[in-house]
Amino acid sequence: MSDPILLTPGPLTTSAATKAAMQRDWGSWDAAFNALTAGVCADLLDIARGAETHVCIPLQGSGTFAVEAALGTLVPRHGKVLVPDNGAYCRRIVRILGYLGREVVVLPLREDEATDPARIEAALAADPEITHVAQVHCETGTGILNPLPEIAAAVARQGRGLIVDAMSSFGAMPIDAGRMPFDALVAASGKCLEGVPGMGFVIARRAALAECRANSHSLALDLHDQWAYLQKTGQWRFTPPTHVVAALRQALDQYQAEGGQPARLRRYRENCAALTEGLRALGLRTFLDDAVQAPIIVTVHAPDDPAYRFDELYRRVREQGFILYPGKLTEVETFRIGCIGAVDAATLRGAVAAIEAALRAAGVNPAARRPTPPAR
Amino acid sequence: MSDPILLTPGPLTTSAATKAAMQRDWGSWDAAFNALTAGVCADLLDIARGAETHVCIPLQGSGTFAVEAALGTLVPRHGKVLVPDNGAYCRRIVRILGYLGREVVVLPLREDEATDPARIEAALAADPEITHVAQVHCETGTGILNPLPEIAAAVARQGRGLIVDAMSSFGAMPIDAGRMPFDALVAASGKCLEGVPGMGFVIARRAALAECRANSHSLALDLHDQWAYLQKTGQWRFTPPTHVVAALRQALDQYQAEGGQPARLRRYRENCAALTEGLRALGLRTFLDDAVQAPIIVTVHAPDDPAYRFDELYRRVREQGFILYPGKLTEVETFRIGCIGAVDAATLRGAVAAIEAALRAAGVNPAARRPTPPAR
Repeated sequence: MSDPILLTPGPLTTSAATKAAMQRDWGSWDAAFNALTAGVCADLLDIARGAETHVCIPLQGSGTFAVEAALGTLVPRHGKVLVPDNGAYCRRIVRILGYLGREVVVLPLREDEATDPARIEAALAADPEITHVAQVHCETGTGILNPLPEIAAAVARQGRGLIVDAMSSFGAMPIDAGRMPFDALVAASGKCLEGVPGMGFVIARRAALAECRANSHSLALDLHDQWAYLQKTGQWRFTPPTHVVAALRQALDQYQAEGGQPARLRRYRENCAALTEGLRALGLRTFLDDAVQAPIIVTVHAPDDPAYRFDELYRRVREQGFILYPGKLTEVETFRIGCIGAVDAATLRGAVAAIEAALRAAGVNPAARRPTPPAR
Repeated sequence: MSDPILLTPGPLTTSAATKAAMQRDWGSWDAAFNALTAGVCADLLDIARGAETHVCIPLQGSGTFAVEAALGTLVPRHGKVLVPDNGAYCRRIVRILGYLGREVVVLPLREDEATDPARIEAALAADPEITHVAQVHCETGTGILNPLPEIAAAVARQGRGLIVDAMSSFGAMPIDAGRMPFDALVAASGKCLEGVPGMGFVIARRAALAECRANSHSLALDLHDQWAYLQKTGQWRFTPPTHVVAALRQALDQYQAEGGQPARLRRYRENCAALTEGLRALGLRTFLDDAVQAPIIVTVHAPDDPAYRFDELYRRVREQGFILYPGKLTEVETFRIGCIGAVDAATLRGAVAAIEAALRAAGVNPAARRPTPPAR
């Protein structure tokens, strides 16, 4: 059985060994499973270079569950959060904060514009009531990379807390809790670590977390309670997704064998370069400038040809063994292609060839351009 | 590799075919995965006989996440909930309602006493402000079965809403939305359906759910929003646990092939009978009367012998290939043994033999009895 390659930003294509790790059942109360959890958490903490100062709290559910848990647990009920907005996942944070009844200040940005640390610092200086900044690291809606080290420095200078959605960057982009101070950083199993989806995790500053008892709006999403129970028992509070945890263990073993974050980033950069070079050779245009493009997911302008339909491109490319991702921009027609997962540059070149064949078969001119859209 | 048999009430031992279903990666936006979700939800709804009146909403995370989602979505902000309490999972509901700020009335019961529908009806008649009853069907803390049909009838007569935690009963005990009216019934993938853990689901009465927009305290746990998005797109709102869903599909195929709920219940009854007969032959005592014992999980009194230690029993039984579960009662020393999962009566007889050998090796007299503990 030859499954299609997922060029989607999670779920993604995992290795055969990672999937094979799900061929066992684990008792959630058993010492063997507790050791699995402890090892996974220790490794995740090491990837963030946070072993001295931070703790790792795993959480059932998708990455968004962990983002909501971090916001609900770390931001006090009367906190006020600045959200720099250059994409869909920034707006999801705003939506979560609305549910939580936390006050929000949005810093609006264009979707092709990285967050400017100076603007964050100015906003914080102007409003001392802001307690936290919630920053998306790599915005999966477009693929833009926001400058986390400089943002963390600006937030620290202003003495506020930083909560980072690092969902689609963790494991690939460098993260260093010592050099980029944050209160919480959130990611998940099924992204650049190349596990399967089903759990998130939060790297939380121990001293910040310790003050957050009874902040949370939710039992299931109460990170302080999850952490306290894990500390006491070595166990998750509620039934863990045992097979997902076992797959993540295997994926982390492969991550370390590959050479850790630098090697993962190198492979994804090669993937991204093979993809963008190939697309441009066809005449397609990427949405972002290369200077702000993370090598995670690439947004591509749809050809301005009346014969183009995303559904047809998707179907024809899928028949050739690749699954694309739709665009998430409201004002420009785009589609997206992930560079992450157990794939290499040859896979991405194969995807470009499939796109070329699909467009040709549909009679679409890839180089047809529409006028540059107005800035948002 | 011979893994231990999990005699735990989820995660449990799954079949080889169920685990093998996790050997593929699925695109969460792909039509094939949407069809998988739709088929799973339709089958779950059929098991509850709710296709005409109810909808099935899958949710990422453990079963507790789905319980909290049902309470947070279905009970309005100024609702008041009656919680009959005969065990740990009843108290978890009370705890969740505390987080949600919903008013709670607890109906206290002994842990070996099934909920009395007449007492529920009297409590509702006495307090017209109570909007909902939150009832655990089979209380996993002890294994007690509460009489859901009679409870549902009492709640309906009083014109209140019923929310059922059917976590450890769904698929094995009969549930019929037409004959046991409920607003929401909650269960999960990794219990009597014999899937792997990682998702819950809520069978919600369509008309009740439709009125619940903007009730939820949480974006991640907002069942109305999850349902509306699923209706519109065929997709989960946030990354689904794709491999867990695929395993549940396979587990449901096996469930249907076995003969559905009646066959599943018959096997579990055989398992439970083999277990309790074997334990009693050793001189061990079960905590519950047989009349209220669900064939899901059995609570066993620890032998009143100074040589007994649960940790040692656990270790010695594990060495023989079986994983037991600790007790969850505070006032009586017990341990628990699950009857569910891809196991049969021969497996349970093997577990009894392992327990006998373990106790003998530790020099424990299984028949040593302590005085009957006082009622809680």
